Amino acid sequence: MKYPALWKMLMVAVCVALVGCLQAQELQGHVSIILLGATGDLAKKYLWQGLFQLYVDEVGKDHSFSFHGAALTAPKQGQELMAKALESLSCPKDMEPSHCMELKDQFLRLSQYRQLKTVEDYETLAKDIEAQVKEEGLRETGRIFYFSVPPFAYVDIARNINSSCRPGPGSWLRVVFEKPFGHDHLSAQQLATELGSFFQEEEMYRVDHYLGKQAVAQILPFRDQNRKALDSLWNRHHVERVEVIMKETVDAEGRISFYEEYGVIRDILQNHLTEILTLVAMELPHDVSSSAAVLQHKLQAFRALRGLHRGSAVLGQYQAYSAQARRELQRPESFHSLTPTFAGVLVHIDNLRWEGVPFILMSGKALDERVGYVRILFKNRAFCVHREGHWAPEQSQCLPRQIIFHIGHGELGHPAILVSRNLFRPSVPAHGWMELQERPGLQVFGRPLSDFYAYSPVKERDAYSILLSHIFHCRKESFITTENLLASWVFWTPLLDSLAHEVPRLYPGGAETGHLLDLEFNGGHLTFSQQQPEQLVPGPGSAPKPSDFRVLGTRYRESPLISAWPEELISKLASDIEATAVQAVRRFGKFHLALSGGSSPIALFQQLAMGHYSFPWAHTHLWLVDERCVPLSDPDSNFQGLQSHLLQHIRVPYYNIHPMPVHLHQRLCAEEDQGAQTYAGEISALVANSSFDLVLLGMGTDGHTASLFPQSPTGLDGEQLVVLTQSPSRPYQRMSLSLPLINRAKKVAVLVMGRTKREITMLVSRVGHEPKKWPISGVLPSSGQLVWYMDYEAFLG
Amino acid sequence: MKYPALWKMLMVAVCVALVGCLQAQELQGHVSIILLGATGDLAKKYLWQGLFQLYVDEVGKDHSFSFHGAALTAPKQGQELMAKALESLSCPKDMEPSHCMELKDQFLRLSQYRQLKTVEDYETLAKDIEAQVKEEGLRETGRIFYFSVPPFAYVDIARNINSSCRPGPGSWLRVVFEKPFGHDHLSAQQLATELGSFFQEEEMYRVDHYLGKQAVAQILPFRDQNRKALDSLWNRHHVERVEVIMKETVDAEGRISFYEEYGVIRDILQNHLTEILTLVAMELPHDVSSSAAVLQHKLQAFRALRGLHRGSAVLGQYQAYSAQARRELQRPESFHSLTPTFAGVLVHIDNLRWEGVPFILMSGKALDERVGYVRILFKNRAFCVHREGHWAPEQSQCLPRQIIFHIGHGELGHPAILVSRNLFRPSVPAHGWMELQERPGLQVFGRPLSDFYAYSPVKERDAYSILLSHIFHCRKESFITTENLLASWVFWTPLLDSLAHEVPRLYPGGAETGHLLDLEFNGGHLTFSQQQPEQLVPGPGSAPKPSDFRVLGTRYRESPLISAWPEELISKLASDIEATAVQAVRRFGKFHLALSGGSSPIALFQQLAMGHYSFPWAHTHLWLVDERCVPLSDPDSNFQGLQSHLLQHIRVPYYNIHPMPVHLHQRLCAEEDQGAQTYAGEISALVANSSFDLVLLGMGTDGHTASLFPQSPTGLDGEQLVVLTQSPSRPYQRMSLSLPLINRAKKVAVLVMGRTKREITMLVSRVGHEPKKWPISGVLPSSGQLVWYMDYEAFLG
Repeated sequence: MKYPALWKMLMVAVCVALVGCLQAQELQGHVSIILLGATGDLAKKYLWQGLFQLYVDEVGKDHSFSFHGAALTAPKQGQELMAKALESLSCPKDMEPSHCMELKDQFLRLSQYRQLKTVEDYETLAKDIEAQVKEEGLRETGRIFYFSVPPFAYVDIARNINSSCRPGPGSWLRVVFEKPFGHDHLSAQQLATELGSFFQEEEMYRVDHYLGKQAVAQILPFRDQNRKALDSLWNRHHVERVEVIMKETVDAEGRISFYEEYGVIRDILQNHLTEILTLVAMELPHDVSSSAAVLQHKLQAFRALRGLHRGSAVLGQYQAYSAQARRELQRPESFHSLTPTFAGVLVHIDNLRWEGVPFILMSGKALDERVGYVRILFKNRAFCVHREGHWAPEQSQCLPRQIIFHIGHGELGHPAILVSRNLFRPSVPAHGWMELQERPGLQVFGRPLSDFYAYSPVKERDAYSILLSHIFHCRKESFITTENLLASWVFWTPLLDSLAHEVPRLYPGGAETGHLLDLEFNGGHLTFSQQQPEQLVPGPGSAPKPSDFRVLGTRYRESPLISAWPEELISKLASDIEATAVQAVRRFGKFHLALSGGSSPIALFQQLAMGHYSFPWAHTHLWLVDERCVPLSDPDSNFQGLQSHLLQHIRVPYYNIHPMPVHLHQRLCAEEDQGAQTYAGEISALVANSSFDLVLLGMGTDGHTASLFPQSPTGLDGEQLVVLTQSPSRPYQRMSLSLPLINRAKKVAVLVMGRTKREITMLVSRVGHEPKKWPISGVLPSSGQLVWYMDYEAFLG
Repeated sequence: MKYPALWKMLMVAVCVALVGCLQAQELQGHVSIILLGATGDLAKKYLWQGLFQLYVDEVGKDHSFSFHGAALTAPKQGQELMAKALESLSCPKDMEPSHCMELKDQFLRLSQYRQLKTVEDYETLAKDIEAQVKEEGLRETGRIFYFSVPPFAYVDIARNINSSCRPGPGSWLRVVFEKPFGHDHLSAQQLATELGSFFQEEEMYRVDHYLGKQAVAQILPFRDQNRKALDSLWNRHHVERVEVIMKETVDAEGRISFYEEYGVIRDILQNHLTEILTLVAMELPHDVSSSAAVLQHKLQAFRALRGLHRGSAVLGQYQAYSAQARRELQRPESFHSLTPTFAGVLVHIDNLRWEGVPFILMSGKALDERVGYVRILFKNRAFCVHREGHWAPEQSQCLPRQIIFHIGHGELGHPAILVSRNLFRPSVPAHGWMELQERPGLQVFGRPLSDFYAYSPVKERDAYSILLSHIFHCRKESFITTENLLASWVFWTPLLDSLAHEVPRLYPGGAETGHLLDLEFNGGHLTFSQQQPEQLVPGPGSAPKPSDFRVLGTRYRESPLISAWPEELISKLASDIEATAVQAVRRFGKFHLALSGGSSPIALFQQLAMGHYSFPWAHTHLWLVDERCVPLSDPDSNFQGLQSHLLQHIRVPYYNIHPMPVHLHQRLCAEEDQGAQTYAGEISALVANSSFDLVLLGMGTDGHTASLFPQSPTGLDGEQLVVLTQSPSRPYQRMSLSLPLINRAKKVAVLVMGRTKREITMLVSRVGHEPKKWPISGVLPSSGQLVWYMDYEAFLG
């Protein structure tokens, strides 16, 4: 068992939750629902309507109800505001109006406003509920507190509920929260800890209203009902990509004080889109109706998400945003916001099912259409002999194959599930969903609607009415548990941190935006397809780009120097290495290349792996210049860097790879194990004259090179080819080629990159041959060639 | 240098060819062209016209010409037939009719019929040419003999030309052949050897007229002129697939006597489509106008082709074919042909540029349209935020990106080069090609023509006129050298052999065929998308196929036995190993697999490499059961087999691979080097309890297993985990896991295949525990499971 602690927690949670749920199902009695923030926007727009729907659905079954609208407003004024909110309650379409009016009257009679401000107010509420239950001669089933208030008010209210409003034994308490649940991992954890001090996990229901949207709520049932057909398809072998999309046409005007603090990633991606992602990606539980199993599998999906980095995302901001922000927040003309109103994020999932499949999450304001969907696009592995234009949607495997959970809006205008007819005829619930009527001329996702098996809900239902019903019926899988919430923040916080100072691309908004925000992904990186158009750049720090400069050649320490912007420098170095390799293989049949570790060569490795198809790898021997005394599989190992950035992308025969033997007999760099001698022996045996064709070195800010450090005599002269050395930084023990061995090479390239190297570059340019102080100054091939590769930052500062 | 012999040959060829070419370019004089088969179909249809075009192009430049139509027919009758063929010569469209008539008159005067039957006829021809040259007061430049005759006539004619018709010193001889060049590798080689005894390689021009088609001839120049734009795109990271297609609407009626012998693979795929494939796939030479470089790179591409197997292809036959064959070949009603008239073949190229990119070759008769093209489809790595339907072809990276060399016919109706506008604006030759006019409503390759930069030749030219000009100008890159031809047959012959008894799928032909021939590829396999429809199977001599049999389970030596046909046995074993691996990784985080060497496991390695995408390789440790005392890179090394058949196709981290240390301190299996002890130490350190999750063994005909041999006591019992042993056959020294170590495994699988194992299988089934006599009988895991995998030949004989 990999996560025993977690399992235990889950099992406890399940047991407790089951008790709570059984009570709800089996005992008859009274349920009190207290809506905190009863006169606010959300209440007016959705929650009262949802509560009325709950009443309509449940009246006459097992429970009586009372509804308490609560707020800070004084009773009289609050009463009036609430009455206004209740006036607009609408009747379910399929209900007889007279019957509905009757129920509405009942509902209004059961709904009361009350001010909840002081401890005493809460105590009074509790007493009133008890009195009412007693009066009705029932037992109390439970109480639901719905927090439709700003998060800063949560803790005080929670404290009051916990101390004064808990129902007696045998009755349940449920508290419902609305996002935002924190701003990052730390704040979310703080809030969760505080709430956790008042409520049990099973008492809390965190709402992500997307989980109540009909198409989203169908993802797991659909996967379950079509298990057999999907089983072979729902994986990296068949899925080309997954898109989780929410486009809005509205902008943030009027909500900027909130928006400026959150931005699109916190507002939409961290919660709604991530939840949808996990519903698609998670392993399907055997029993999808088990909340515990669903939540456990969701957490497993979170654990498999590959960490995001700055290159995983692109940001945009509609052009009018900063002006709106200045207006609403009363900022000076000089104020420019960096808050993104658009984001695209590329997510990868590192498990056997999804490895390599791009999940694209995208949301934005002021876009050209309003639509939300998740789309699973399958790979095209067919070649159609039958001529194009005559392809039958049911038969041709060359037409796109996709499954779409259409959340709403867009061309379709309503929730739907679409399955390409060349995939399979899906099962959908017999009740509640119906096949869509043909709508000639309607194109969705690149194809006529008739290309899909298409289903939509018989009755469109608002997310909140569904979620209120789930709260009442204790269906916790539609809510965000603390673990789920924190897992999501763990995933998103590092990206948010790394993007904190990123300048978003400005876009005009609406249809005018054109292709400006189109995305491209490659490897782990997401970029805009189009270059930043000059006229839209307001000039915040637009530095000259690499392509503006050419590679510069001159001399450094009396050897050739090649200087350029990083990208070009790496590209030049890679080409030079390939040319050297091709020449060596042509002349000697093999190429002996010794590579340094560290971060600078990584870009080089990637360039070699991805851009040099004719590199004679099959005839190349790879040696290490130096190694840290850690196991080869340790992330700190230089070899591990070589492995992940180069070896796994190319085909070098196993016996041409020569890691340093730092790990022998289960020990690291023990003198007795003679690792250095072994490596030296291997070099002598395989490399003619122990003269490498090319040695790639770096230079440290202290003037070290390879793992030869200043003020330490080892390896600077003498007979030894390979030495054990001491680094001033962890891991202290190192193995390194010696300076005499390096200087036997036919060619030595020193790669120096980044502003931090500026000082040592200056210094070393002036010193003579002083390897004890600056080991790099001892690099001087006796009959080979030395070439310096420096980027402008290292060379020019 | 890997191919020194080849290099030498090429260099010689280049030098000789250069001399031949220089003579053609520099010396003025007379050229005689002898068309053998002058009254045949090909001559009538293309060759005379091509010769006239050559005359039109070259007249008045450096040479005078004479044209000799030759055949077996007696002079008078032949003269008449030839005159008829010449009557229909047409004038180039851009030439003034009167000027053309003048040239035509000249051409007819220069063209004579002559019977070429006997040795004397050839001698007379030679004398006549000499006389004519002398008469004209010129020197002779050279002679072209065009073999437009059936291949069975080649050798006799060649002998006569060689003995009687060679021009004098300083003049060249060129002989031109039309396919078929053999029926398989052996016959092609025979023919090549025979012709090679009469002609030098540089004298021979083998025609593949597809290389003269304008769009095909542009592939290399296009790649060259767009080198910069294509450099980053033309590889596996960007190319989704390549399709090389030739669809015909005609059927084989009237040509069945030829067709029945060849079929579509020999007729179209082995030559035309393969040549196109290599033009797309080959590394682009620095100088594409160098014939030698082009041919060398082409051969390199051939070497990188992955071998084809039965699963690489699907075959079809139009329904009327067998009846046509019965009629034309006068066969009885019971005759059913197996000759394919349709084939789809999936080709993979094992180099860094193309690894994993499917190349689909397809051709067929009686299909729903006539069209030929090669299409390079690029991967879609974009997500377009801009709403669909508003995508601009130049800008949207979500529209298909493709480059098509359209050979002819189809919707376009003529040769063309198409490049999607969202790729780049290509360079095409300023002369000879022009941008295509917009043709509203025309859809090609799924998009309106306006989505492409589209170019077509200013003047459509017939392939033969181009090739005749190339022969005259000594442009050998448009022809098939012997090496090229044999490389192609080496590639195709094993597939043809394995398909010899395959029953092709019957298809109605034309549009009626519908989706019946649509293809799907997965891993290395190509299949029809649709299941075989029952009613179309006539059942001619369909032998039972492996899939008709189920895997048989029973017991052997009191352990489970799994028995099946080889293919299924391997497939079952591979699945079982994967299941064991997945389970082990799930439970312990890793999977320790010990593999035997030898030939039987190779099919298993291939199956694992190509068919098991979910195998948890990243968590698998690979160990060797035994090793021969040779360097790891020796072809005899068990590790080398593992490397080439498994490791190079999968991604196992370097440090999870554990070859046996048979080669230490530049010695092989020296006791003092303690290799066995080192390996044992590595096992103890990494494998919990030294208990492998799975050990794969084989069984020798002498009852040996691993490298534990009968009558040799080493490794059968005792404490040692790894031992040095002696084999009765070379190389004598071995390293092996010991029997006690093997028996600690959680699971042991013994794979036994082939008729040669029948006897030992019988014997071992009856013996008890006698490891000294039959080491295999000592395999009995102490607490693990033993399973026998035997194919029917080994088990049933």
